[in-house]
Amino acid sequence: MDLYAYVLKKAMEAKEGAMAVAKVSSEQKNAALLIMAETIRRSAKQLQRENKKDLAAAKKKGLTKAMIDRLTLTGQRIDDMSQGLVDIANLPDPVGEITKMWQRPNGMTIGKMRVPLGVIGIIYESRPNVTADATALCLKAGNAVILRGGSEAIHSNKAIVKLLRGVAKKAGIHEGVITFLDNTDRQAVLEMLKLEGIIDVVIPRGGEGLIRAVTENSRIPVLKHYKGICHVFVDRDADLKMAEEICFNAKVQRPGTCNAMETMLVDEKVAKKFLPTVIKRLKSAKVKIKGCARTRKIVPSVSRAVADDFHTEYVDLILNVKVVRDIEAAMDHIAEYSSAHTETIVTEHYGRAMRFLREVDSSSVFVNLSTRFSDGFQFGLGAEMGISTDKIHARGPMGLEELTCTKFIGLGNGQIRS
Amino acid sequence: MDLYAYVLKKAMEAKEGAMAVAKVSSEQKNAALLIMAETIRRSAKQLQRENKKDLAAAKKKGLTKAMIDRLTLTGQRIDDMSQGLVDIANLPDPVGEITKMWQRPNGMTIGKMRVPLGVIGIIYESRPNVTADATALCLKAGNAVILRGGSEAIHSNKAIVKLLRGVAKKAGIHEGVITFLDNTDRQAVLEMLKLEGIIDVVIPRGGEGLIRAVTENSRIPVLKHYKGICHVFVDRDADLKMAEEICFNAKVQRPGTCNAMETMLVDEKVAKKFLPTVIKRLKSAKVKIKGCARTRKIVPSVSRAVADDFHTEYVDLILNVKVVRDIEAAMDHIAEYSSAHTETIVTEHYGRAMRFLREVDSSSVFVNLSTRFSDGFQFGLGAEMGISTDKIHARGPMGLEELTCTKFIGLGNGQIRS
Repeated sequence: MDLYAYVLKKAMEAKEGAMAVAKVSSEQKNAALLIMAETIRRSAKQLQRENKKDLAAAKKKGLTKAMIDRLTLTGQRIDDMSQGLVDIANLPDPVGEITKMWQRPNGMTIGKMRVPLGVIGIIYESRPNVTADATALCLKAGNAVILRGGSEAIHSNKAIVKLLRGVAKKAGIHEGVITFLDNTDRQAVLEMLKLEGIIDVVIPRGGEGLIRAVTENSRIPVLKHYKGICHVFVDRDADLKMAEEICFNAKVQRPGTCNAMETMLVDEKVAKKFLPTVIKRLKSAKVKIKGCARTRKIVPSVSRAVADDFHTEYVDLILNVKVVRDIEAAMDHIAEYSSAHTETIVTEHYGRAMRFLREVDSSSVFVNLSTRFSDGFQFGLGAEMGISTDKIHARGPMGLEELTCTKFIGLGNGQIRS
Repeated sequence: MDLYAYVLKKAMEAKEGAMAVAKVSSEQKNAALLIMAETIRRSAKQLQRENKKDLAAAKKKGLTKAMIDRLTLTGQRIDDMSQGLVDIANLPDPVGEITKMWQRPNGMTIGKMRVPLGVIGIIYESRPNVTADATALCLKAGNAVILRGGSEAIHSNKAIVKLLRGVAKKAGIHEGVITFLDNTDRQAVLEMLKLEGIIDVVIPRGGEGLIRAVTENSRIPVLKHYKGICHVFVDRDADLKMAEEICFNAKVQRPGTCNAMETMLVDEKVAKKFLPTVIKRLKSAKVKIKGCARTRKIVPSVSRAVADDFHTEYVDLILNVKVVRDIEAAMDHIAEYSSAHTETIVTEHYGRAMRFLREVDSSSVFVNLSTRFSDGFQFGLGAEMGISTDKIHARGPMGLEELTCTKFIGLGNGQIRS
């Protein structure tokens, strides 16, 4: 069988799965998710045995330590993967929710009802836990997944998929809801991305290179999250103690995440007072500071920031600092350099707080909050598929609701159009 | 200047326009729309003069009568175009609406706020009125448009754009909100579709060929409406008089629209009683009927339907009729042949009504209503950009709300993440 025929067959299986799972009750989906969680926990040894094959191949190929770490299924990670499924089972089911309903003058009632998206293609790199997480989120929202994991995790992924499909079958859910492309040829991804009308949406999960390649080659709509270059703007009317706490938290609490602050913008009116204290504190936490000329005039020990730095997602203990004329200049900087992920203003000035909130065009915009809060769990939405920096469908944390769309429904009693 | 540089320059102008218009107040946008309406009405002669150039070229090129009709700007059409702008000015502004807001245990408040999409690319064919309609909808929702009309309407489109830009400028709105590609080279469209990150979404308006070509070549997200193959299913528990009225209305009231019925499915339990009456009435309105074998057994005068017919959007007085075993068979047929536009069940059976409503995967699903109601105005939503048959972002009539997305906003008083 040629590659196209192989991918098409898999996608058709997923489509059948999607048509079936769209009608499955929340109770049945939740029951299946709980058994999946239990099965994964009980199969830890078996999963680790398969994972060892991937790890051996990775060492042979000379993958970096960081890559091998991401690939490794420790006991703790298997427990976390299992717990993730339990958490998703406990979230409310978005499918069938009627978000609005209104009556028209002719007596018909029109409304909007949440419905699954259909078949969701997930294209991801080394972390095998994505296999379970993504499947569970899609399943709960009434969708089928067609999974295409990285070749480096092939044995681990196949083992996880086998367990999940086994449970689906026993739970009376069409196995096609979890479809896995076990051909790791790059061409298989390209064939997959042509299947408009069978696969409804593609979500790439991985580095920027992967996301760009998928976007460029896909005829299917892509939901994506590019990098996070997040800003905190310390306004002239900020409570400077609060600003210090927020900036410190946004940079230091977990610098490797996409919602960590990469650039701190400081109003010139408070720069002299604010910068020495906050930079001292950041440096005590081993943050390397790169500053604009005005920053370096105030704190000469800071190294020089070049234009490229402001475009860089460090995901590390490095921070750009820039002194700006006012909120206007801060928002101009954000419009130019931000990746539209998360930005915060720290201020006690009502008018500027409201302006920032309204005018900054990012997926999460905060007043007096650490950027680290832009996250499905922190928002109270539960597990998420990633944080979308797209402009359509969904911006920000993509949870169960974002894995659905709405259709219009109409209830009449014989109305016709005149 | 080469073509890419030309298109890029235009797109950058639109992006500047988008950044500016996102912050413009509803009052200012509405005032501009009303002046645009007035200006178009007053410039009817000037527009018709330009339109005549297009009509002359069209005749020379030998375009069909239907195409020339679509291209023609009659006095009535200019008035309608003007009134369309007034209607859009009178609709509520979606931008800035906070659709939800909730408090988290740590005291921060999280919400979702409607924001413009940014730069919307509109690629359309001959109708010059799209130039004004699409611009007005995008502008009202805080977006900039970059318009690429068909070469056959170039003089009309340029004249309309000139008027609209003139008003924008006088009203203090950045002219970039209405950007027009006056290069009618096909390659210009391809260059435009590469500008991911500058143009935020593309909406093709025209025939299936245009939409497919745009989808295949675009790196920018595309919102599309393919054809409308709409179904009415007459259930065994239908009120047959109501079913007759609905089917007649759905087919005959305006057969040239995308929400007209193309296939009527009839439960075998009522086929004998229902078909002779309804077919007689449809034939009296000059509807040509194509039936399945069982239909032809009941009404022998009906011609034979072949499989391809069920895939055809007639937009004409032609109707497929099929007798089905039950609701299950009806939904299977719909899943296979529908274009996911609009489907109706006619029934007095509560359980089957609810099943159909929930399980049919189309953008509008009705009980006891004519399919002709799936339309922004009929739903009470106002003017629309088209009827999306997509699965993401928006399904069904795409009005002002669908030309926005939501961002998360957070109001805190110094919360940091622990």
